[in-house]
Amino acid sequence: MKLDVLVVAAHPDDAEISVGGTLLRLARAGKRIGVVDLTRGEMGTRGSADDRARETEAASALLRLSVRHNLQLPDGRVEATIEARERLAAIVREHQPDVLLAHHTDDLHPDHRTAGEIARTAWYLSGLSRLASDARPARRPSRLYHFMGHLPFEPTFVVDIGPVWEEKVRLVRCYATQLAPAGAEDRGEHFLFGADILARMETKARTYGERIGVRYGEPLLHRGPLPCFDPFLAPSGDEG
Amino acid sequence: MKLDVLVVAAHPDDAEISVGGTLLRLARAGKRIGVVDLTRGEMGTRGSADDRARETEAASALLRLSVRHNLQLPDGRVEATIEARERLAAIVREHQPDVLLAHHTDDLHPDHRTAGEIARTAWYLSGLSRLASDARPARRPSRLYHFMGHLPFEPTFVVDIGPVWEEKVRLVRCYATQLAPAGAEDRGEHFLFGADILARMETKARTYGERIGVRYGEPLLHRGPLPCFDPFLAPSGDEG
Amino acid sequence: MKLDVLVVAAHPDDAEISVGGTLLRLARAGKRIGVVDLTRGEMGTRGSADDRARETEAASALLRLSVRHNLQLPDGRVEATIEARERLAAIVREHQPDVLLAHHTDDLHPDHRTAGEIARTAWYLSGLSRLASDARPARRPSRLYHFMGHLPFEPTFVVDIGPVWEEKVRLVRCYATQLAPAGAEDRGEHFLFGADILARMETKARTYGERIGVRYGEPLLHRGPLPCFDPFLAPSGDEG
Amino acid sequence: MKLDVLVVAAHPDDAEISVGGTLLRLARAGKRIGVVDLTRGEMGTRGSADDRARETEAASALLRLSVRHNLQLPDGRVEATIEARERLAAIVREHQPDVLLAHHTDDLHPDHRTAGEIARTAWYLSGLSRLASDARPARRPSRLYHFMGHLPFEPTFVVDIGPVWEEKVRLVRCYATQLAPAGAEDRGEHFLFGADILARMETKARTYGERIGVRYGEPLLHRGPLPCFDPFLAPSGDEG
Amino acid sequence: MKLDVLVVAAHPDDAEISVGGTLLRLARAGKRIGVVDLTRGEMGTRGSADDRARETEAASALLRLSVRHNLQLPDGRVEATIEARERLAAIVREHQPDVLLAHHTDDLHPDHRTAGEIARTAWYLSGLSRLASDARPARRPSRLYHFMGHLPFEPTFVVDIGPVWEEKVRLVRCYATQLAPAGAEDRGEHFLFGADILARMETKARTYGERIGVRYGEPLLHRGPLPCFDPFLAPSGDEG
Amino acid sequence: MKLDVLVVAAHPDDAEISVGGTLLRLARAGKRIGVVDLTRGEMGTRGSADDRARETEAASALLRLSVRHNLQLPDGRVEATIEARERLAAIVREHQPDVLLAHHTDDLHPDHRTAGEIARTAWYLSGLSRLASDARPARRPSRLYHFMGHLPFEPTFVVDIGPVWEEKVRLVRCYATQLAPAGAEDRGEHFLFGADILARMETKARTYGERIGVRYGEPLLHRGPLPCFDPFLAPSGDEG
Repeated sequence: MKLDVLVVAAHPDDAEISVGGTLLRLARAGKRIGVVDLTRGEMGTRGSADDRARETEAASALLRLSVRHNLQLPDGRVEATIEARERLAAIVREHQPDVLLAHHTDDLHPDHRTAGEIARTAWYLSGLSRLASDARPARRPSRLYHFMGHLPFEPTFVVDIGPVWEEKVRLVRCYATQLAPAGAEDRGEHFLFGADILARMETKARTYGERIGVRYGEPLLHRGPLPCFDPFLAPSGDEG
Repeated sequence: MKLDVLVVAAHPDDAEISVGGTLLRLARAGKRIGVVDLTRGEMGTRGSADDRARETEAASALLRLSVRHNLQLPDGRVEATIEARERLAAIVREHQPDVLLAHHTDDLHPDHRTAGEIARTAWYLSGLSRLASDARPARRPSRLYHFMGHLPFEPTFVVDIGPVWEEKVRLVRCYATQLAPAGAEDRGEHFLFGADILARMETKARTYGERIGVRYGEPLLHRGPLPCFDPFLAPSGDEG
Repeated sequence: MKLDVLVVAAHPDDAEISVGGTLLRLARAGKRIGVVDLTRGEMGTRGSADDRARETEAASALLRLSVRHNLQLPDGRVEATIEARERLAAIVREHQPDVLLAHHTDDLHPDHRTAGEIARTAWYLSGLSRLASDARPARRPSRLYHFMGHLPFEPTFVVDIGPVWEEKVRLVRCYATQLAPAGAEDRGEHFLFGADILARMETKARTYGERIGVRYGEPLLHRGPLPCFDPFLAPSGDEG
Repeated sequence: MKLDVLVVAAHPDDAEISVGGTLLRLARAGKRIGVVDLTRGEMGTRGSADDRARETEAASALLRLSVRHNLQLPDGRVEATIEARERLAAIVREHQPDVLLAHHTDDLHPDHRTAGEIARTAWYLSGLSRLASDARPARRPSRLYHFMGHLPFEPTFVVDIGPVWEEKVRLVRCYATQLAPAGAEDRGEHFLFGADILARMETKARTYGERIGVRYGEPLLHRGPLPCFDPFLAPSGDEG
Repeated sequence: MKLDVLVVAAHPDDAEISVGGTLLRLARAGKRIGVVDLTRGEMGTRGSADDRARETEAASALLRLSVRHNLQLPDGRVEATIEARERLAAIVREHQPDVLLAHHTDDLHPDHRTAGEIARTAWYLSGLSRLASDARPARRPSRLYHFMGHLPFEPTFVVDIGPVWEEKVRLVRCYATQLAPAGAEDRGEHFLFGADILARMETKARTYGERIGVRYGEPLLHRGPLPCFDPFLAPSGDEG
Repeated sequence: MKLDVLVVAAHPDDAEISVGGTLLRLARAGKRIGVVDLTRGEMGTRGSADDRARETEAASALLRLSVRHNLQLPDGRVEATIEARERLAAIVREHQPDVLLAHHTDDLHPDHRTAGEIARTAWYLSGLSRLASDARPARRPSRLYHFMGHLPFEPTFVVDIGPVWEEKVRLVRCYATQLAPAGAEDRGEHFLFGADILARMETKARTYGERIGVRYGEPLLHRGPLPCFDPFLAPSGDEG
C-alpha cells in the first residue's frame, strides 16, 4: 500500500510522543500514514510487552494508521545490522512513502540513536535498484525528517500542533502503563528529567511552539537544503 | 507601497547576482518586489557610479521592481551605524514586506557582511512601535533570508531557478561594466576566484541546483526554525 | 561597595526576566547583588521610561539589591563604544564582584547582543591596571556568565529556581506595563513568540529545569573551562 | 612494494570520480600509486560486477597504478568489522604509503561513510607493532586525507586538476556502464542530484577550483594541524 | 560495594595517564574509587600483558582503589557489542558510583573512542529497571565526564592537580614498560606526537592548568548542562 | 619596499610572542619581513610606552625586520574604524607582501580581536583598485593566516620552531618590562593564566609542537581551502 508518510520509531510510544501531533494533523488532512516500531518496548521500566501492544493498538486507531509494523528487534539492544536496515528498506519500498520521519541519530537512549541511524541508512538503500525486487521497485522518499528525543537540537521546522493538542494528549494517554507509577518507589515523575511524560511533552511543545509564534509545536530536522517552491507567501504566525 | 519582498544589498548588482533568479520567479508570479541598495558601487574595480546607475535601471526594469532605493552609503566603507539601520527599518515599515532578503552576516567583502548585519538589525527594529510613526506602523517581516556572497554556507532552502536561468543571465549582463575587462591588465576573469562573474554564477547555480536535484538553484539561509504547514506533500525534485 | 554579583542588562526588566530566580536565591543566601541597566527602556513597546523607573524600583526592592546603576544609553540604540565599556569597567572595579552576569553576545534584540559584547569587554578591561585608579584597583571578576534572551543556546549550568519560583513571578509582575496590552490592537501576547512574557518565562524555566531534573531552572553559559573543586560529590537532581 | 600514495575507496569508480585528477597529477610526477577498493560494486544500479571489473582495469591502466586490491566486501553491506580494518591495515603496512586517501566518515551512501571509518581506523592500527609481522613492520602513513562524496564539507586543500582535466574525464568515461542509462526508465541523469556523473563531477571541480582561483579542483580534508614547511612562498592562484 | 567514582578505560594505563591526578585528589579526600579496564593492553607496542598486570597492580595500590575490574576484551579490537555494554552496566549497578569517568567518544585510538561509546551507553542502561536484578537495582550515576586522549577538546572543567602532581608522575612511572624504549629502533619518544608519555602528560597538564590559572590540570568534559548550586561563591584560581 | 611577509599585531610584543619563531625561521631563510603594530602598548600593566619602544627596537633587530610601522592607535581602545583599516590596507599595498599574519578575530583581549578584524578587512580592501593609487597598485596577499592569542583554536598548520626556540626565548626577553614583576603586589606570574609569559609561551609551543610531532611549534589558522601543490611528498615529523 502506497503511504504518504512512514514513521520509524524505536519503541511503541516514541512515534506518538515525538510526532503524534504532526501525525494527527496529517490524518485529518486525509493522508495515509504508517508506523514501523523497531521493538515491542519489552524492556521499558513500566508495563509488559502485552500491555504495550494493547496500548499501541489503541493509539494506532486514534492515529487512523493505515499500517503499523513491528520489527521485533530486542528492546534496549537495537543494533544497526545489515539485516535490520534492509528489512526497513524493504518496508519503505513496499509503501513508497513521500516522507520518512525518524529519530535523530544522536540521543541519550541508545535505541533511539541506533534507530535514527538505521532509518537514515534504509532511506538511502531504498533507492538502490539492485536491492529492490520487481514487486517493490526502488524508490527513495523525497524527505527524511528527524524528530526529537532526549537531546535538544535546532530544528529546521516546527509543526503547529495547536489544533490537535488535546487529541495528542489523549493519544499519549493510551500508553497508560508508561504514565503511571510502577510501584511505591516510583512516583511517576522521577525520570532522568524530573517530570512525567505528559509534563515534559507539554514543555517541549510550548518551547518549540514559541519558536514559531504558536502555542504548541513539534520540532523536525532536515539535513541539507530543501527545495523552496514559494516560501515567501506562506502565511506565518510570527507577526508583531 | 506594500511589497511582498524586499531585498537589501550592498552594491547595485549584488541583488541580481545573488537572488536574481528568485526575484524573476516571484515577478512572474505577480509579486511586488523592492530592492534597497546600500551604496552606488562607486568603488567597484570597474565602471563609474553613473555606469552602474544606468545598468541598475535596466536590471530593475527586467525585474519589474516596484521600487528601488539607494541609501548612498559610501562604497567600501559601509558601517553598521544607528542611522543606517534606522533608515533601513523605516523603509521596511514603509513597504511592509512579508519577506526580507539580505546578505549573510559573514562574507569576505566587508560591505557584504556589514549589509547583512544592518539588515538583521533593521528587521528586528522594524517591529518596535516606538521607532515607528503612525503613518508607518511597526511591522516585522515574517521571514529574513540570507543569500550567499563569497563564502559558502549550508543553505536551508534552494530556489529552483531553472525556469528563469536564461533570463537571469540577461539580467546580470545588464551590468556590462562589471563583466568586461577594465584594461589591458584586466583579463576579465582574474577576480579572487579566477573566473568571471557569469562563470562563477553558473557554477554556484549548478552546485546548489544539484543539492535539490534541479539544474540551477539559488541558496537561501533561514536562521531558526520555520513554521511547517505541509512539508510532506509538496512535490520534490529528488526522485530516484 | 564590594559586591558578590553584578548583573549587566540592556533594559530594566531584562535582569529580572533572565536571572531573577538566581538573584533571589543569592539574596536569600545573604549575597550582595548589584545591577547595571544600560538603558531606561524608553523605546519599549509598552510603558513610559517613568513607568519603567517606578517598576524597576519595586523590583530592586524585592531583589534586595545593594545598588542599581543605569548608564542611560539610548534604548534601541546601544552601541559598544569605548566610553560605554570603560564606564562599565569602572563600575566593575568599584564593586569588585566575584561574578558578572550578562546577556549572551548573540541575540535577536540588537541591544541584548551589544550589551553582551560590552560586558565581555568590560570584564577583560576591569583587570588592566592602567585603566584603573588608586581608589579602584584593577580586579577582574573570576567568572563571567551569559544569560539567555531570545535565542536558545546550550547552557553550561542551570540554576534550580524551584525554591523561588513564585517569588520570581511576583518579581516580574513588578513590570506591569510590560505585561499588559498597550491598546486595542495589542492582545498582550503577540510578541515575536506568540505568548506573553510570563508564559514564555515559565516555558523557559520548565525547559531548562528538566535538563537538570528540577521543576524550574535558569540557564547560564560559561565560555571556557571552569576550575573544578569537587564536582563529584555535589548532590544532584537527576536520579533514576 | 613501497607506494607513495594509497587510496581506499568503497566501489571501483569512487577513487577515479573523487580523486582521479589528483592521482593523474601524481602519476605524471612519477609517484607510485595504489588503490584498495572495498567492494566490486556489484550492487550498483547499473552494470554487472564483470563490467565493472573490466572498466576498473582500464581505469587503472590510465592511472598507471602500481597495484589495485579489492577486499571483496559485499557492496551495499560494508561493515566496519575488526577483520576488514585489519586486512586494510596489513595492506597499508605492506605498501608503506606516505599518504592515505579515503572517503569522508560522513556521507549519504552508507558504504562511503563506513569505508571512511575503516580507513581512519586502519591508518591508526597500521602503526601498532603488535599487529604487525616482521615482514611488514608497523608504519603509519604521515597523512590521511578524506575526499568528498555526496556531502559537501569545507576542505583543507584543493588540488588544482586543471592540467589533467581532460584526462580525468577520459578516466571516468572508462566506467561506461555507470554513465549510460540502464533502460527506458533511466534517463541517465536521474540520480539523487538530478544530473549525470560527469556533469556533477564538473560542477564539483569548478566549485572547488574557484575556491583557490583555478578552473578545476578536487577537495581534500585533513583532520588536525599539518606541519608547515614554507607556506609563505608557495606560488598561489589567487591574485587580484 | 558502593563507590563514589568509577573510571572506564580502554587499557590499564589510560586511567592513570588521563585522570590520575583527579583520582589521587579524590583518594586523599577519602573517596572510594574503582576502575574498569576494558582490555589488558596486550597489543601495546611495549610490554607484555603480564608486565602490564604487575604495573597495574602497583598503580592501583598508589591510587588506593577499592576495586579494579578487567573486562578482558581484546586489545586493539574493542567493539561496542551488546554484551560489552551490558557487562559494564552491571558493574555500574553493582557499585552505584555517583560519577562515571570515561574516554571521549572521539579519539585517534579506535579502542579509546569505542570505550567512550560503551561507557556512554552503559551509563544510560544502568538506569533501566528491566536490565537490573534485585540484587543490583537500576541506578544511573548522576554525572558522566569524558577525559581526554589523543584529540583535544574544549573541556567543561579542569581539575587542579597541582597538589598531587609529583604523585601522579610516580603513578604513571609504575607503567615502566610503557615508558622505556622497547629496542634499538625505539628511542622512547617517537610516538605519534614526538615526545614520550611523561613529557606529553606534563604538556597537557600545563596547558589545561593555565586555562584555570593553576600549574597543572586535567580536563573533563560534561555533555549537557549541570545543576549549579553555588557557582558564585566558590573560590577561584583566576584572579588578577 | 616589497616584503615577503607582513605581521599585523595589536601591541609591540604580540608579534614576537605569537609568531616570533616563525619569523626567525623566515629571516634565516632570507625573507623580507615587516611588522605593523597597531598601538604602542602604553596601557600595558607593566612598562612605559618608551620602555616598550626601546624593547621593540631590540626585538626588531633580532628579527632582522625590513620595516616596522606603528599606527599609534590608542592601546586598550583599538576600534575597527574605516580609517584604521584603510591605513593598514595602504601599508599592505605599499609592501605587497605575499603573506599576512594577524591576530585571530576572537580573543579575550578586545584589542586582539579588533586587530584581527581590521587585518581581515584590510586584506580584502588591499585588492580593490579604486582604493589604490598608481604608486601603490591594488594587490591582495595570497594568504592571510591568524595566529593565536589567549583563546585556543584548532590550527590549520603548526610551524616547527624547534630550530629557533632558544632564539625565540631571547627575542621575547627583549621585552623585559613585560616579564618582570611591576611591584610588590606583582609576583610576575599572576596573569589571567597563572603563569608568566615565558612559561605560557613554552607550554603553547610544546602543545602545538606535539600536534605535529616536534618539540616546539607555533599554530596558524587559514580560513578556507588552500591550494595544494604537493602535499603528498613533503617530509613529515609524525612517523611511528
